[in-house]
Amino acid sequence: MSNASDVIVVGGGINGSSIAFQLAKRGYKVTVIEQSKIAAKASGAAAGMLGAQTELIGNGPLFRLALKSRAMFPAIIAELEERSGIQIGYETKGIYKVAVSEKHEQDLKALIKLHNTAGEKAEWLSNDELIKREPGLAKSMLGAMFIPEDGQVQAYELSLAFAKAAISLGVEYHDFTTIHDFIIKDGKVTGVQTSQGDLLSDSVVVAAGAWSGLLLEKTGITLPVFPVKGECYSVVSNRKLLNSTIFTEDCYIVPKKSGRYIIGATMRANTFDEKVTVGGISSLMNQATALLPEIANAEWEKAWAGIRPISGDGLPFLGEHPYVKQLYIATGHYRNGILLAPATGELMADYLDGRREPFMPFGLSRLDPNHLFKGESKCI
Amino acid sequence: MSNASDVIVVGGGINGSSIAFQLAKRGYKVTVIEQSKIAAKASGAAAGMLGAQTELIGNGPLFRLALKSRAMFPAIIAELEERSGIQIGYETKGIYKVAVSEKHEQDLKALIKLHNTAGEKAEWLSNDELIKREPGLAKSMLGAMFIPEDGQVQAYELSLAFAKAAISLGVEYHDFTTIHDFIIKDGKVTGVQTSQGDLLSDSVVVAAGAWSGLLLEKTGITLPVFPVKGECYSVVSNRKLLNSTIFTEDCYIVPKKSGRYIIGATMRANTFDEKVTVGGISSLMNQATALLPEIANAEWEKAWAGIRPISGDGLPFLGEHPYVKQLYIATGHYRNGILLAPATGELMADYLDGRREPFMPFGLSRLDPNHLFKGESKCI
Amino acid sequence: MSNASDVIVVGGGINGSSIAFQLAKRGYKVTVIEQSKIAAKASGAAAGMLGAQTELIGNGPLFRLALKSRAMFPAIIAELEERSGIQIGYETKGIYKVAVSEKHEQDLKALIKLHNTAGEKAEWLSNDELIKREPGLAKSMLGAMFIPEDGQVQAYELSLAFAKAAISLGVEYHDFTTIHDFIIKDGKVTGVQTSQGDLLSDSVVVAAGAWSGLLLEKTGITLPVFPVKGECYSVVSNRKLLNSTIFTEDCYIVPKKSGRYIIGATMRANTFDEKVTVGGISSLMNQATALLPEIANAEWEKAWAGIRPISGDGLPFLGEHPYVKQLYIATGHYRNGILLAPATGELMADYLDGRREPFMPFGLSRLDPNHLFKGESKCI
Amino acid sequence: MSNASDVIVVGGGINGSSIAFQLAKRGYKVTVIEQSKIAAKASGAAAGMLGAQTELIGNGPLFRLALKSRAMFPAIIAELEERSGIQIGYETKGIYKVAVSEKHEQDLKALIKLHNTAGEKAEWLSNDELIKREPGLAKSMLGAMFIPEDGQVQAYELSLAFAKAAISLGVEYHDFTTIHDFIIKDGKVTGVQTSQGDLLSDSVVVAAGAWSGLLLEKTGITLPVFPVKGECYSVVSNRKLLNSTIFTEDCYIVPKKSGRYIIGATMRANTFDEKVTVGGISSLMNQATALLPEIANAEWEKAWAGIRPISGDGLPFLGEHPYVKQLYIATGHYRNGILLAPATGELMADYLDGRREPFMPFGLSRLDPNHLFKGESKCI
Repeated sequence: MSNASDVIVVGGGINGSSIAFQLAKRGYKVTVIEQSKIAAKASGAAAGMLGAQTELIGNGPLFRLALKSRAMFPAIIAELEERSGIQIGYETKGIYKVAVSEKHEQDLKALIKLHNTAGEKAEWLSNDELIKREPGLAKSMLGAMFIPEDGQVQAYELSLAFAKAAISLGVEYHDFTTIHDFIIKDGKVTGVQTSQGDLLSDSVVVAAGAWSGLLLEKTGITLPVFPVKGECYSVVSNRKLLNSTIFTEDCYIVPKKSGRYIIGATMRANTFDEKVTVGGISSLMNQATALLPEIANAEWEKAWAGIRPISGDGLPFLGEHPYVKQLYIATGHYRNGILLAPATGELMADYLDGRREPFMPFGLSRLDPNHLFKGESKCI
Repeated sequence: MSNASDVIVVGGGINGSSIAFQLAKRGYKVTVIEQSKIAAKASGAAAGMLGAQTELIGNGPLFRLALKSRAMFPAIIAELEERSGIQIGYETKGIYKVAVSEKHEQDLKALIKLHNTAGEKAEWLSNDELIKREPGLAKSMLGAMFIPEDGQVQAYELSLAFAKAAISLGVEYHDFTTIHDFIIKDGKVTGVQTSQGDLLSDSVVVAAGAWSGLLLEKTGITLPVFPVKGECYSVVSNRKLLNSTIFTEDCYIVPKKSGRYIIGATMRANTFDEKVTVGGISSLMNQATALLPEIANAEWEKAWAGIRPISGDGLPFLGEHPYVKQLYIATGHYRNGILLAPATGELMADYLDGRREPFMPFGLSRLDPNHLFKGESKCI
Repeated sequence: MSNASDVIVVGGGINGSSIAFQLAKRGYKVTVIEQSKIAAKASGAAAGMLGAQTELIGNGPLFRLALKSRAMFPAIIAELEERSGIQIGYETKGIYKVAVSEKHEQDLKALIKLHNTAGEKAEWLSNDELIKREPGLAKSMLGAMFIPEDGQVQAYELSLAFAKAAISLGVEYHDFTTIHDFIIKDGKVTGVQTSQGDLLSDSVVVAAGAWSGLLLEKTGITLPVFPVKGECYSVVSNRKLLNSTIFTEDCYIVPKKSGRYIIGATMRANTFDEKVTVGGISSLMNQATALLPEIANAEWEKAWAGIRPISGDGLPFLGEHPYVKQLYIATGHYRNGILLAPATGELMADYLDGRREPFMPFGLSRLDPNHLFKGESKCI
Repeated sequence: MSNASDVIVVGGGINGSSIAFQLAKRGYKVTVIEQSKIAAKASGAAAGMLGAQTELIGNGPLFRLALKSRAMFPAIIAELEERSGIQIGYETKGIYKVAVSEKHEQDLKALIKLHNTAGEKAEWLSNDELIKREPGLAKSMLGAMFIPEDGQVQAYELSLAFAKAAISLGVEYHDFTTIHDFIIKDGKVTGVQTSQGDLLSDSVVVAAGAWSGLLLEKTGITLPVFPVKGECYSVVSNRKLLNSTIFTEDCYIVPKKSGRYIIGATMRANTFDEKVTVGGISSLMNQATALLPEIANAEWEKAWAGIRPISGDGLPFLGEHPYVKQLYIATGHYRNGILLAPATGELMADYLDGRREPFMPFGLSRLDPNHLFKGESKCI
């Protein structure tokens, strides 16, 4: 690691790799530092839903970012499959957001109106229409909001495809490498200290998911990004149980290729503990069976967990460090890290390129400066 | 496989290996034929409970056989650990048979009297006493029958120890070997045809668990032994959740060494399908959490299934084939295959040795000859 | 399983599923009986090479069958991916057959002429040209025969895609089901006895790979089909080590999508033992490293073995049983089971359809009747 | 984590847990902070050799510490098995240090004299005597040094037993918890900042293996402790291949209970990369087969790697931080972490107890103060 890079990206998950890929396409010399392996954490653990209209309720900036990112998928999937040779399993068969109470039904109908007004497709299906399309669903549902343009990918494969496409463009990955500290001179980052030695660069991007806050404490700020554990499991069935993804707030079922179904995800706040608990799986099983009774006969495959980064206000952080120049931050994507990866890569590359003004709602300037400093015990 | 053996044992599970071990100790030259690997099926899938008084309700011959086998454990475990070097994890910390209804409480109290009358230890614990001993249990239980002399082993380790002790005495194991047919001359078995060629012997013992019936169809009889799938899962906890095994009809929790807990077992009749289903695991999880709420926080490890052989009348078959001389049968142990292995080995060795008269309740003579023949389409 | 089928296929591997798929497309009602799970044995263990010109040396009927099957891939892959939703990873980047001695070089050059004369593409590459295309190869090779139209698939995915496409056309799969015997009346098969009961049909096709011989012994013939164990392992590398498959007689390296490389395969005759041995893996590692030195730095993933069926004369058996009408046989594909699956499905469906005369070189009539009978101890 | 502890131990590997166990026995209130899970790294990856005389050539302080620790095993194993219920697989069947050249033979004979002079048992075995005891060994060896009192344990089980015994004495373990920084006031440690919040204590012990250096950089010192990757694999054999451990510099074979054999270990300096490489396994396979030819037929099980901490001068660091009071360090055990764990626990507890003067050869005072500071960019 003797030569200097233009940019060091800290984090080899899907967003770090997407940023590295976009920067490499623009001619930057990029190095990615990954603590364990590529996509070893939340990126590889995700179910891969592309739920722009499914997951995001409002009509604010995050919703628009999600739509923008979703629209990027067809082109970027084609490019990544070509460059990396990986089959990503991209599908746009829509997502059903099932109503589980009358209140919920009203909320979903209001949401459909909101989305339609915003120019997005969404429609209400009565329970009869729903069962006609998805005959395996429990008869007791109250109908569903159908979102035809949401879809899914294989999350690990997409993460790996970003990384391999980046590598094919000359990006260097250093795995099993730990960041000790940032090297900062006159208020500007100039590199990082790692377990493999010092590494110099013009800019550094921290895209370390739920671990970003820990890293940035070294720069004297307390970034309000918290870990949220999500547990999932998968089953296998030779009979088709479902055509499209079924989504409720507490449980979703994503039908993957090869007859695999991923059921997710619990939400347990404020822990980096990746252990899968009996209680988590049991609760997901009870909910999945209530939605799709036939899943009780499906074959158990395995369970796993991922640690997702949530920010204090629910919006990701995409921007420059408040006090250290050329140190960029891209984290806080919570349950939408896969969906937002294409837009995150492009946006961050635009920032570094100087092509784009700071995008206010996601910038670091929204942090309250009174709470940002950890105290005088740190020297920056 | 050119030389003839004294005895061929068909089946490298715990009972086949126990028989081979006892015969080898008496000087017989023994060959074991195993379709896949040693203890690959039900023997390796068992939770390892030694529930002589827990599992068997009555006071009949199977109960007495179970007590006899349980009493053999201390000596045989010591011998097997010495000969094989394997640590078997034998424990006699007792089993709690928890009352889940008032009716159940009355039944258990009657059972205690029956066992005490038969000279066996068993006592009633009020819920307070139960909780004092097992503070993790749900407060809503109605007390428990405590059986101090029931215990447990590591089932796979015990199965392997029988096999390795047998090997140390000269027994030959042929794994991944299929039986095509029995070689029968003048109404007496003289060997077996296998995927590795013919093998001759004075006697053959079929100890092939739930697969015994399929094999014996080749001799023209329909043995009423049926497969019953049992699904289990295991969890891990660094905190102690339980000191001794907790047992109800539908769910038991066995605390193993190293902080592992095995939760079993569903019963699904008449299938050789080893797939673990979501419904099976989900039901065991709900029951285990009702018994031991803290298990919800334990770490998920894995799930598996075994296929156990049940006979038509619930008693094992231990005896000689009704029409073919020197062809012996030892199967139908259902949920008690681990517990009964020591006695099965000794009993069958006694038969072959001529030291013992046919033990009537388990003999093949109890089969109704009118139902035994499969029909005239078979030539024997 | 009360209803009768038109055809029962015994074996849920790639060839059984291909046959079932073709029959279902022609309107037959088909049931597949599988002893364990779909593609659980050799079909799922294969490296997935499509080596029509790579594996087959001569210019005989098997070579022509292989070419025919290879030509079917583009259309059938498209159809299967559409019907099953599975991504099969079909690639036609060619295969390099590397010369490891001067004698080998002469043989390969003669083979190129033979193939060119037969109208097939193949060309000689000097070592310089070879290294230019595959810079990771050891510099000490003597050049290579390049076969541009050979390729590869993901073998398990293709097997599963055949099965799922068949299921989508109404084929029923019964897994974990054992065949006890064939039901034969007046010299014609009328069904099978299984562990789930009797099942009737007009025709039965045995496509049980290396296990076909054992099954057919029940009909009184000794089919000269023998098991050959093949051991493989896989490694993972984020750096590209190889663009196309490298093949020598003793070792091949197949670069799969996602940066996985499969290295195969040992050949150990006459065993159903699926254990992977240290000696087998060690020998493959030494050979792979001699071919591609950089593979020493690749990450170890896992090892496995499959049992492949070889016939006495090296040709598959595709035809009707010599003595039992409507009982068909499709086995003996040895190392070419994946490649030959499309043609096998079509050919066997043509037979059953009556559209095709027995294809002599692969027919059962080539068996020497003097050796076919096992003896008078069997009644057929 | 609101309450203060007496001692915080950083690292839940075998040495951290041994220290916590000894401190808890003396009445300290102890908390262990572990980055992932108990014994997840080198402690769980070790082959478990207790090679006091095998691994350590000289007669210096480390040799004497190793002998002292080895002598503690019988009593501590009994205590840990009793407290934890875990079977640790402790054996003292000796180790054979095989001569692979005439020079090596001379060295080993000289070493025997040195050990005998020091009062330790060791003897020379001619090749004939060696083969008589271990008939599976290659006939080409030149004899061996036999060390009857060296032995082995199951390394993961011993690590877990220390942790569970500690927990049974009231020690609290926090897994999946990261240390951000040490809290230091007036030159004395007062606690740690963690991903779960701040935690106060009178003393802190860093026993974080190869990761200790990274942690201690936060205190401004550069501890000369470096990671060395070791790769291993295991095989299984039902036939006994070996009675006791065989050791050469480049390869050892440790026969475990249940017919498992562990073959280790490569040494790759200066990497935290836990990937197992083809080259590493291949080299171990070639060496193991040269020693024990029959291992070629053993069944492959799995491969793994661990990262071991080596110090600049080869001696562990056991002592107090050079500048921060009450901050203790116990690392650098390299290949002897399992063997040294009992003595490390006792020694460190003695230090903290004030019962023992700093033990000079292992103290931190041996560091050259000119090289210790990382520079003025750090504030301590």
